[in-house]
Amino acid sequence: MTAEGLILKIDCPDRPGLVARIAGYVADYGANLLELNQFTDRVNHRFFARLEIDTNGIDVSVEDFIDGFGTLGRACQARWHFRRLPFLMRTAVLVTRTDHCLNEVLWRTRLGEMPVEVTSVIGNRDDCREIAEKEGIPFHGIDMAGDAKEEGFRRIAAILRDEGVELIVLARFMQILPQWLCEEFGGRIINIHHSFLPAFVGANPYRRAYERGVKLIGATCHYVTTELDAGPIIEQEVARVEHYHTVNDLIRLGRDCERSALARGIRYHVHDRTILDGNRAIVFPD
Amino acid sequence: MTAEGLILKIDCPDRPGLVARIAGYVADYGANLLELNQFTDRVNHRFFARLEIDTNGIDVSVEDFIDGFGTLGRACQARWHFRRLPFLMRTAVLVTRTDHCLNEVLWRTRLGEMPVEVTSVIGNRDDCREIAEKEGIPFHGIDMAGDAKEEGFRRIAAILRDEGVELIVLARFMQILPQWLCEEFGGRIINIHHSFLPAFVGANPYRRAYERGVKLIGATCHYVTTELDAGPIIEQEVARVEHYHTVNDLIRLGRDCERSALARGIRYHVHDRTILDGNRAIVFPD
Amino acid sequence: MTAEGLILKIDCPDRPGLVARIAGYVADYGANLLELNQFTDRVNHRFFARLEIDTNGIDVSVEDFIDGFGTLGRACQARWHFRRLPFLMRTAVLVTRTDHCLNEVLWRTRLGEMPVEVTSVIGNRDDCREIAEKEGIPFHGIDMAGDAKEEGFRRIAAILRDEGVELIVLARFMQILPQWLCEEFGGRIINIHHSFLPAFVGANPYRRAYERGVKLIGATCHYVTTELDAGPIIEQEVARVEHYHTVNDLIRLGRDCERSALARGIRYHVHDRTILDGNRAIVFPD
Amino acid sequence: MTAEGLILKIDCPDRPGLVARIAGYVADYGANLLELNQFTDRVNHRFFARLEIDTNGIDVSVEDFIDGFGTLGRACQARWHFRRLPFLMRTAVLVTRTDHCLNEVLWRTRLGEMPVEVTSVIGNRDDCREIAEKEGIPFHGIDMAGDAKEEGFRRIAAILRDEGVELIVLARFMQILPQWLCEEFGGRIINIHHSFLPAFVGANPYRRAYERGVKLIGATCHYVTTELDAGPIIEQEVARVEHYHTVNDLIRLGRDCERSALARGIRYHVHDRTILDGNRAIVFPD
Repeated sequence: MTAEGLILKIDCPDRPGLVARIAGYVADYGANLLELNQFTDRVNHRFFARLEIDTNGIDVSVEDFIDGFGTLGRACQARWHFRRLPFLMRTAVLVTRTDHCLNEVLWRTRLGEMPVEVTSVIGNRDDCREIAEKEGIPFHGIDMAGDAKEEGFRRIAAILRDEGVELIVLARFMQILPQWLCEEFGGRIINIHHSFLPAFVGANPYRRAYERGVKLIGATCHYVTTELDAGPIIEQEVARVEHYHTVNDLIRLGRDCERSALARGIRYHVHDRTILDGNRAIVFPD
Repeated sequence: MTAEGLILKIDCPDRPGLVARIAGYVADYGANLLELNQFTDRVNHRFFARLEIDTNGIDVSVEDFIDGFGTLGRACQARWHFRRLPFLMRTAVLVTRTDHCLNEVLWRTRLGEMPVEVTSVIGNRDDCREIAEKEGIPFHGIDMAGDAKEEGFRRIAAILRDEGVELIVLARFMQILPQWLCEEFGGRIINIHHSFLPAFVGANPYRRAYERGVKLIGATCHYVTTELDAGPIIEQEVARVEHYHTVNDLIRLGRDCERSALARGIRYHVHDRTILDGNRAIVFPD
Repeated sequence: MTAEGLILKIDCPDRPGLVARIAGYVADYGANLLELNQFTDRVNHRFFARLEIDTNGIDVSVEDFIDGFGTLGRACQARWHFRRLPFLMRTAVLVTRTDHCLNEVLWRTRLGEMPVEVTSVIGNRDDCREIAEKEGIPFHGIDMAGDAKEEGFRRIAAILRDEGVELIVLARFMQILPQWLCEEFGGRIINIHHSFLPAFVGANPYRRAYERGVKLIGATCHYVTTELDAGPIIEQEVARVEHYHTVNDLIRLGRDCERSALARGIRYHVHDRTILDGNRAIVFPD
Repeated sequence: MTAEGLILKIDCPDRPGLVARIAGYVADYGANLLELNQFTDRVNHRFFARLEIDTNGIDVSVEDFIDGFGTLGRACQARWHFRRLPFLMRTAVLVTRTDHCLNEVLWRTRLGEMPVEVTSVIGNRDDCREIAEKEGIPFHGIDMAGDAKEEGFRRIAAILRDEGVELIVLARFMQILPQWLCEEFGGRIINIHHSFLPAFVGANPYRRAYERGVKLIGATCHYVTTELDAGPIIEQEVARVEHYHTVNDLIRLGRDCERSALARGIRYHVHDRTILDGNRAIVFPD
């Protein structure tokens, strides 16, 4: 990724000449197209692209460059989004007990692998408080037991709004989000599910995988929608298992799948490498 | 695998001293234990083992060695099976249109990778007739359209009985077997399903995988039981897919998964490396 | 891949505006850009692209469209290549004894997976003659034992020239090509080496892998250059091995790596999805 | 792994009846064989086995059980080793700058995935001091620059002897150990090398992988011997790379390979699942 510049994500109905027009706009103002990923969905006749643009040499202001694109975007009936680089995506991480996914996010963030700023860790249990606080990140403990659940979600939403997060990571958060919350933060919530979806939707996937006697277990990183475990899939990972692996072994082996699928999924999102195409996620990996 | 000798598969309720007694029996008559694989299911307290035995040095006849084991086997309340080596497993392959799985089986058989003798290829369409006949293998075309289906399955069963097959491979055979046939040949029918089960049970898994937007597709080699696509899994294989892959691409990429999962599944079965443990298959790979 | 149209491969020194100019040329004459893959090597400041173009709607002849691009290509100091679709790449397959790679190429060709026409199979032994001839493909047996080797290579080159092949596949051809032949057919010879290069360059890689005790074996599909096993790598595949695998097991497991790495490597080449960047191969996979 | 009991590792010249005698010994004193892994190297005629034994029901003391085995072990000319469970393997971790491998070891230890007690972290730079100390583990900073190197290694050896470690993990320790140290701690030093050995022995493997244009990078976990990067391999891991990955991307992707190969390698070692067979490591995975 460039140190400075712009990322443009765009999608619109397909028609001839789109690349020429978009790349032409970039070139016309003296910007340099560093990377272009493009995909045409020939079933639904829709065009998707991601551009990485070096704006060092442009002969207008960056604001002007972005504004001026609107005319072209509207002419194409496009949805588009510019991101200015460098940036850090404000991110909240929601957890319950297990810490491996949280640890992975924190470690990669600290290493600079991902342009993320973790604004807070929110837990319906206190197990991960110490990890967050050692890292200097605020931890919000939210009671969600029994009748407190509804109020708990309202408090979580308030925190998310307050912190202005652009990404919410469910890092093995063992609560089903209410519909209104999924809708309010649509396209900004990433979950890690501990099975290779659509196998084992719902609870206890490792136990069910053991009982079914599968030879592969997995994990799925997906956007959260109002339908449980049915949102657009960003990344999946599998691991081989044998007959001698117990449910606990599956849980252990699965943790590694979860960590890597989640890490890659977040990476693609924060680098603006994902675009939604109905219930499918277009991913331009790096 | 040894050129000459015995393979013993055994399973029984777990108790202390089983390995000592079984290996002791082998040693007592001067046979040599070449390979021992053992597994104890600690949930169900059941013991499973596979032994490869060199009988060159034994001081009784092989028949006597096998017979004499019965006393020990019964004392352990075991199920057991001896196979004399070398052997070729008599195998029928059932097909419909596509030939990639059939080709794979024939190629590996010809190469001597698997101790298999394909006694016949049975098809409800004629698409694979030429491949079988070029190889010098009888092809039985069985009409199964509409009302002919029931009679078709009776004819297939008659062929299988007649040829005394020990293995029936459903190599993309696009018909659901009737319950009576599954039961008659229980534990001897291997299917290749074109998804990573339990995802996408039933028809058109590649189309459904495309629509769900999964990032991995797969294939599952399993024993056939009376419940569709729910029998014990022997082997699974997956391949990575991207948003730009169409349903046809998934079919193409899936073929490679199907070929390798089926080939390995058959290999484990014909080498007596599988033992059923309820609805799970214990597999001692080689 | 489109049924009809053009594939353009191009590479040139990097400069701003390249995508706009190339895509602009396509749009200017009413052609439709179906797929664009682009890569900028920021180390060597070189631009690489592959375009798939639907020419159905163009308002000049295809010849004229191709010719006219020359002005732009030269202005960019580019190397470029147009391929008209549909096409079949004329291909010779060189073999010695083992047939698994040859079989794989023939099977995928027959299935229509790859736009290849196998013009002949050339062997320095007769082991694969029957396979070729059953398929209706001429087999040239070339004696290369001892002193006959030099004359043998001259005869092979004469056949390749005569048949006007655009691709030469070394499908486990166990002879080292002379320098003059590598040079004459530079960029058109693909080899499958039975190790994950650069490990185990040269002879007997499986034996050496066994002796080294590696836990992964592999295969490498690469372009042939005058330096043994050192040409640009197109594709690699690995498989897990265990301590109990003998050299023969490694050979068996390796065959599957060789088949799939070679098949994908050929696929990328014949779909014009590879561009050489010094000793590295840029591959835009599909 | 059992909560309480014994692990027996044994290897000896192959002969008939070994499993019967060893398992017989276990059964004779009322112990229960929970798991048996066995391998016969038919090339070198050597027998290897690992037994997991439940000693709860034995009718002698565990010491006596262990002592009494000596007669059988000597009769078989065996090397053998008993480990009493539960146990924690005393382990020192050597580091330089990068912390991902250290983090992985600490995280898995904390989680109880591996029976390890990290006695100290030793670094020739101070970069990892904070991580160790946050975890409550002593950090020894050892100056090894220039002339201080020899003295540095003597100090390290003194610490290792002093702490009575049974395992030394080189977690991206960027110094070549002197021969005397490799010999003194032979079979107890595990290194993670950042390539799929034997490719890219020595320095800068990621840069060399980039320059060679490989499509797979990897990591190798191996025992350290006096020959650089040539010791017995315990585990290897690979990741797919593309032409657009820079050297820095390879380093990033490689970290994940290093972490998982090292974690699994350590796991196998501390669970006594490895036995050396010349320069090859027999690994009975779990």
